[in-house]
Amino acid sequence: MNSPKFVYYFGSERTDGDREMKDLLGGKGANLAEMTRIGLPVPPGFTITTEACEEFNRLDGEWPEGLEEEISSNLSLLEKETGRGFGDRENPLLVSVRSGAAISMPGMMDTVLNLGLNRDTIKGLATKTGNERLAWDSFRRFMQMFGDVVMKIPSERFENILEAVKKEKDVEYDKDLSAQDLQEVVDRYKKLYEGEIGDPFPSDPWDQLRLSINAVFGSWSNPRAIRYRELNEITDLLGTAVNVQTMVFGNMGENSGTGVCFTRDPATGKNDLYGEYLMDAQGEDVVAGIRTPQPISTLSEINQEVYEELQETRKILEQHYRDMQDLEFTIMEGKLYILQTRTGKRTVFAALNMAVDMVEEGLIDIKTALMRIPAPSFNQLFAPVLDQGGKESARYLTKGLNASPGGACGMAAFTAERAEEMAGEGKAVILCRKETSPEDIGGMAAAKGVLTARGGMTSHAAVVARGMGAPCVAGAGELEIKSDEGYLKCGEVKIEEGDVIAIDGFTGEVFAGEVRVRPSEIVQVLRGEMSSEDSMLFDKYSKVVGWADDVRRLGVRTNADTPRDTEMAVLFGAEGIGLCRTEHMFFEGDRINSFRKMILVAEEVKRLKGLIESGNGEEELRKKLEGPMSTYREALDELLPLQREDFEGIFRVLEGRPCTIRLLDPPLHEFLPKGSEGQRELADLMGVSVENVARTVDSLNEFNPMMGHRGCRLGLTYPEVSDMQVRAVVEAAVECKKDGVEVKPEIMIPLVGHRMELSIARERALKVAHQVLEEKGLSRVDLPLNVGTMIEVPRAALTADEVAEEADFFSFGTNDLTQMGCGFSRDDSGGFLQDYIDMGIYERDPFASIDAGGVGKLVEMAVDLGRKTKPALKIGVCGEHGGEPLSVRFFNRAGLDYVSCSPFRVPVARLAAAQAILEES
Amino acid sequence: MNSPKFVYYFGSERTDGDREMKDLLGGKGANLAEMTRIGLPVPPGFTITTEACEEFNRLDGEWPEGLEEEISSNLSLLEKETGRGFGDRENPLLVSVRSGAAISMPGMMDTVLNLGLNRDTIKGLATKTGNERLAWDSFRRFMQMFGDVVMKIPSERFENILEAVKKEKDVEYDKDLSAQDLQEVVDRYKKLYEGEIGDPFPSDPWDQLRLSINAVFGSWSNPRAIRYRELNEITDLLGTAVNVQTMVFGNMGENSGTGVCFTRDPATGKNDLYGEYLMDAQGEDVVAGIRTPQPISTLSEINQEVYEELQETRKILEQHYRDMQDLEFTIMEGKLYILQTRTGKRTVFAALNMAVDMVEEGLIDIKTALMRIPAPSFNQLFAPVLDQGGKESARYLTKGLNASPGGACGMAAFTAERAEEMAGEGKAVILCRKETSPEDIGGMAAAKGVLTARGGMTSHAAVVARGMGAPCVAGAGELEIKSDEGYLKCGEVKIEEGDVIAIDGFTGEVFAGEVRVRPSEIVQVLRGEMSSEDSMLFDKYSKVVGWADDVRRLGVRTNADTPRDTEMAVLFGAEGIGLCRTEHMFFEGDRINSFRKMILVAEEVKRLKGLIESGNGEEELRKKLEGPMSTYREALDELLPLQREDFEGIFRVLEGRPCTIRLLDPPLHEFLPKGSEGQRELADLMGVSVENVARTVDSLNEFNPMMGHRGCRLGLTYPEVSDMQVRAVVEAAVECKKDGVEVKPEIMIPLVGHRMELSIARERALKVAHQVLEEKGLSRVDLPLNVGTMIEVPRAALTADEVAEEADFFSFGTNDLTQMGCGFSRDDSGGFLQDYIDMGIYERDPFASIDAGGVGKLVEMAVDLGRKTKPALKIGVCGEHGGEPLSVRFFNRAGLDYVSCSPFRVPVARLAAAQAILEES
Repeated sequence: MNSPKFVYYFGSERTDGDREMKDLLGGKGANLAEMTRIGLPVPPGFTITTEACEEFNRLDGEWPEGLEEEISSNLSLLEKETGRGFGDRENPLLVSVRSGAAISMPGMMDTVLNLGLNRDTIKGLATKTGNERLAWDSFRRFMQMFGDVVMKIPSERFENILEAVKKEKDVEYDKDLSAQDLQEVVDRYKKLYEGEIGDPFPSDPWDQLRLSINAVFGSWSNPRAIRYRELNEITDLLGTAVNVQTMVFGNMGENSGTGVCFTRDPATGKNDLYGEYLMDAQGEDVVAGIRTPQPISTLSEINQEVYEELQETRKILEQHYRDMQDLEFTIMEGKLYILQTRTGKRTVFAALNMAVDMVEEGLIDIKTALMRIPAPSFNQLFAPVLDQGGKESARYLTKGLNASPGGACGMAAFTAERAEEMAGEGKAVILCRKETSPEDIGGMAAAKGVLTARGGMTSHAAVVARGMGAPCVAGAGELEIKSDEGYLKCGEVKIEEGDVIAIDGFTGEVFAGEVRVRPSEIVQVLRGEMSSEDSMLFDKYSKVVGWADDVRRLGVRTNADTPRDTEMAVLFGAEGIGLCRTEHMFFEGDRINSFRKMILVAEEVKRLKGLIESGNGEEELRKKLEGPMSTYREALDELLPLQREDFEGIFRVLEGRPCTIRLLDPPLHEFLPKGSEGQRELADLMGVSVENVARTVDSLNEFNPMMGHRGCRLGLTYPEVSDMQVRAVVEAAVECKKDGVEVKPEIMIPLVGHRMELSIARERALKVAHQVLEEKGLSRVDLPLNVGTMIEVPRAALTADEVAEEADFFSFGTNDLTQMGCGFSRDDSGGFLQDYIDMGIYERDPFASIDAGGVGKLVEMAVDLGRKTKPALKIGVCGEHGGEPLSVRFFNRAGLDYVSCSPFRVPVARLAAAQAILEES
Repeated sequence: MNSPKFVYYFGSERTDGDREMKDLLGGKGANLAEMTRIGLPVPPGFTITTEACEEFNRLDGEWPEGLEEEISSNLSLLEKETGRGFGDRENPLLVSVRSGAAISMPGMMDTVLNLGLNRDTIKGLATKTGNERLAWDSFRRFMQMFGDVVMKIPSERFENILEAVKKEKDVEYDKDLSAQDLQEVVDRYKKLYEGEIGDPFPSDPWDQLRLSINAVFGSWSNPRAIRYRELNEITDLLGTAVNVQTMVFGNMGENSGTGVCFTRDPATGKNDLYGEYLMDAQGEDVVAGIRTPQPISTLSEINQEVYEELQETRKILEQHYRDMQDLEFTIMEGKLYILQTRTGKRTVFAALNMAVDMVEEGLIDIKTALMRIPAPSFNQLFAPVLDQGGKESARYLTKGLNASPGGACGMAAFTAERAEEMAGEGKAVILCRKETSPEDIGGMAAAKGVLTARGGMTSHAAVVARGMGAPCVAGAGELEIKSDEGYLKCGEVKIEEGDVIAIDGFTGEVFAGEVRVRPSEIVQVLRGEMSSEDSMLFDKYSKVVGWADDVRRLGVRTNADTPRDTEMAVLFGAEGIGLCRTEHMFFEGDRINSFRKMILVAEEVKRLKGLIESGNGEEELRKKLEGPMSTYREALDELLPLQREDFEGIFRVLEGRPCTIRLLDPPLHEFLPKGSEGQRELADLMGVSVENVARTVDSLNEFNPMMGHRGCRLGLTYPEVSDMQVRAVVEAAVECKKDGVEVKPEIMIPLVGHRMELSIARERALKVAHQVLEEKGLSRVDLPLNVGTMIEVPRAALTADEVAEEADFFSFGTNDLTQMGCGFSRDDSGGFLQDYIDMGIYERDPFASIDAGGVGKLVEMAVDLGRKTKPALKIGVCGEHGGEPLSVRFFNRAGLDYVSCSPFRVPVARLAAAQAILEES
């Protein structure tokens, strides 16, 4: 059997590879061959294949048969093409050696430059370049790189020598060392090398090359690289390729230089060359930042010809790759060389602009354009941003989780009440809490941004802030937040109420002091605060979401609880409400008092009714029940018109779009004040003893409230509350219909685990609804009311065929399904979940992106079983996952009808739903 | 089409039915026919079929065609047989009308006696019996029953009239009313009837009969009966039958009487007639308790002939039904009539004795005997019992849940510490707590019994007490238990520390004062405290469990954490340990201090190690780590020998039986003191500030600890703890092997949800194990170590095919699987779960008996998926369900290899496993 071809040449003599051969040649090698093919000025060289690497590792570090011969013959060809000799004293061929797998990977060996230098060839280099110092500096750099990268001698040891010589010579910068000084450095490097390795530094270029190639091959199997592949589930790659390429020098005087550039602006997407360069410098110098690189536009003043060639290269590359490229170039004595090209990273702003521009330029089609926009960061388009310059001049404090994108700046407030008060005085406020709870909603709504010391990406603060589109930095663990005492500390810095701070929800950064905030252009246009004609960005945004809508199958709804949120969501393209949480409504203004009043007597009412039903001492019990019952009814009567107004407001905004309303879900204790002061206030307000209030709070306390007395369990044990909510929905719907506004309310029963729960709750809800309709002189057909359920308890998914018998629709609550399916308390998982992701147990936070392999099975099972009972069952999802692109892809695959997410994620979901279709086809 | 036969006669003229026809004739009707067939003296009559009832309800209250004719002709036959006439003035035929479905059912109409009486026939009855008072009293009773039962006039209204007349006549008892007085009562009853119903009281016996039959038919569809059938999933019954039977009177003088008796003693199983009777009385009088009934044995003195006939009947019935019968009889003027027979209810003691006796008598076979013993109450055989007389003389306080069977009496102690101290002083103690937590284990072990005010059948107190075989009354909500102040209150009664109380875990009763406690005979024999020859009960017990072992397929292991528990379990027949919880060991004695010491530094150790791994400032960090790390190691080093000793002790008792050891499971905060005093003590002990301790407690606090940082999540984030535990297991095993004791340890990783968790934990455990073996100069084959996992997180069940790749065995943790599968926090479900059961959503408490239709699906899925990967995968269950008979049946069906339960439930599981096989075949 013939051995496969292990080495692929690229150069004017011959080019063996092309861009399709990434698996065999790695990304870098394939692109070098491709650029050579299309006539770009690439220094010639050759690529050793990933198969060679695989063989090398299979043979425990031996080269496979034929490899040496192939390298040797390709090296000869390279000598021929360059007219130089490898190890030649007069005209030495120097090469770089770089790894390059199909996917770039941390931990793998990087680069050795100037390989081929030794005491002999250095003279040839000096003569050839007429620059002895350059020659010695090149050798010094080569030794250091070779020693560090290939032989694993710690880099500091080399640095220490260099520093020592600089000190001895009393110079500040490397460049001030003379050729002789550098020779001294080289001598000491040799000693260091011998001491560490036990052998002299290899002077034979062939030995240098062999060792370097082996080091690249070996680095494929180093633990960090293996770990990275495991974590990223990269199992189909054989190994890394090795690129051996002729050295070109940018540091050969004022007519040489080096630079990096993008074919378009990676920050804005502007269609122009963007980048920087340094004359008389090597790549390292650009990175080191000792000299300030120049913007690429100024290159035309220095070398018009090269600049034009670069512009031409840009066009060729974009026409060829049909995407923005990130390239490295070197100018050697006036001649341009392209050393690398790859698809450039970009901000979402740039991605949007480029995608639309390239469609208009005819470079790409619409499907490609849609796939080019990173859905996960799409909603960054809608967030206000902190001014970069402002950030640099403010005092950096700490970094938390970038929980909700956007920048915000304002005065620190440490309680929700103070935040509301201060906002009421017209101040911009940042609400700072150890963690937030539903009691803080008012304060969060009033604040420009939210900062917490505890909680993860799906903590209450994070979820609510994302829902509001408000910037949030969560879980900034270094902060000590003392709400009671009204300050926070970060190390030595103390921030008191009213002190100005800024948070960057894009990065998680927190600053002390004023930082300017710029609003999102798109949001301004959507809100009518800016004309769409003034915003190029809006124009492109609306094109892209329009294209997405044409492609996607999944419907996109929103999770919204107020007319304001609903309005924003509709502007963002929501096709209805998938989750209207009724409990948030209870926190607004004074209504919390009515609700608390109800809670305080609810248990007593329930107890007495139970006794009456069991039929003992009816008269006396009925008398006892009168007091609590009238308080109970009074509270519900107070809440009814308020809820009705809420629903009416939402229905009017929706204009006939469906609205799924979830009945009361959280455990009652969440509505009661936890602190003794709040309890005293409540007691005073209600005219009962503080002990009475405290006893109720205590009795409602739960060990694991997530799995406690909540959801439909509340509705079944305190049915009057659900009755009131259903009545409010139907009364609101009737009001709207009167005015000719179409309405499609749907009642959703939460936390169902057993078909009987849904059956009882559904029957009762329909009874109330029909009663209201009758009161209003309407019939059931005037307002068809769908009653469905959340699927969020594993048992409901497991018995979805039974549950479907009672349901008009399913809506997955994937947050709770994840909590119960994985046994992860969302609020507590901080203690181990990050470790789990670090250990590679879970690839991603299952609360952020659905755990398709586990929790996803429950989703698939519920869809299958549900549709077995009712083939046309409407199924959606209303958990946070509804707006996360990977999850949206999963839901599309699982056959759901729609996803529902927070208003600011609606465009994300629209885009992701389209991408899901495109990916599958 | 001919209509079906609606009426079945029983009597000497003809008997149409037999005992096989329960579905058609109901239980009562079928048995009346059967007894008639076998020649027993049953008053003749006829049964209207359940099909007639079904037709009646289908026809909205009309009699089906042919029914009237059939009743009429059967009534004629009855007149012929009895020689009396229905409505005949001279010699009236009186009948009783009773409902009787195939299954007895609350809510259905009961009995109308003396039907056929009116102003005319009453005279005949008076003449015929020579007893005018009897006649009027019979009429009065008939009117009252008819009015109440058939016409739904509240019974009190009749009682009020009776009381009024008694008052007017100035008599105390009914029997003191004269015939004339009773006539007065009858007159007033008639007025009441007319006022309530609007029609005169029906005097035509035919009308009386028709209305009564209709009332029985209708009662099939009353809400209570429907609800009962729904709850009990009775869907295959058509309706109720109606029994019309000739009246016989036990109140016709000294030669008449009535009684109830069992063919064997229902309390002890003694093979002798057992029961009581009253002469000159009707059935009601026996129940009313105004006169004291006589023991049946004395009947021979009064009427030898009847007594012998009864003895003969007993034999006939037992030979015929091959089970103990509960029968009602009446003696009318010296003649014995049998009115009803049915299988008698019995205590578990009686069930055991009878089952074995009947096998020996050749009445039944072994399989039947095994099915006759109620597995759910089988473990009552092992509990000490409160003396009945003692209970009557003590002061009854309240009733809680009968959480763990047995009686206990001792001094009240209100903290675990005091309980231990007092027990140390030789006192019998009852530990009284609001609820218990793992901190209370020591006190629970020291106490004779446990009493809690909160928590359900599967609360911590209940589960641990059942595990220990200690009596427990849980959730006695009327008790106000003030641990801090050292007293409890029940209404006005205050019990202070040292006051004697008694609890009855069979009934849930709580008493103040001394009550004598008798130990279980079987346990005394097993413990060698009594000779087996002295105990008939033990003899029968060991026969039954031996028979069960021959039949069952499921293995039975035990959940035990100490040598003592293990010993008891082995005596009870456990075939190994299915769950050895290592955390309980940490609470014993001083070792909790070592464990707490470890916890206090664990987080710091983990943080520093994380930083070191990320590779920054290594030197400095290593220095910082030294202190905490040495404390950490020190604590683990202190714990190692203690755990090793525990395991060694257990292994020695097991003598080669397998032992599944679960690594640390509960969240760390459970091990730290909650109160400030405890925290101060700990701080002093460890020489750190109390703030330091409080901070750790606070940082470990979780919102939903059930789903928090526990199980393998601990083992993965603090691997040194698991290492220590595995080392202790292997070292203990090696010690035992040295002494020739066989050992089969198995390491079980808890709370796995993802295969990777198990993979990492398993690899690490095996590494430690192999290291220990190497240290001891042994090889891996000397001690094969199985590593498996709990399946208790839904995700693990859903991905069991993947998890099985890493597992040597599965063991279901159905408690947690239920918590997460249903979303019920076990500790909090009290708030709604009882309501749920009352509403019929769940038939049974899913924590007590596995929810086969929901959580059970996860079990079945995991078995299927696991065995798909490894066909021979060993699968067990170690949750509380492992000892619950219905659940055992489910596990048998699901194909598990073994169940594991608390020691005192091992015999239950053995029996239930045999019954599961018998039921299936």
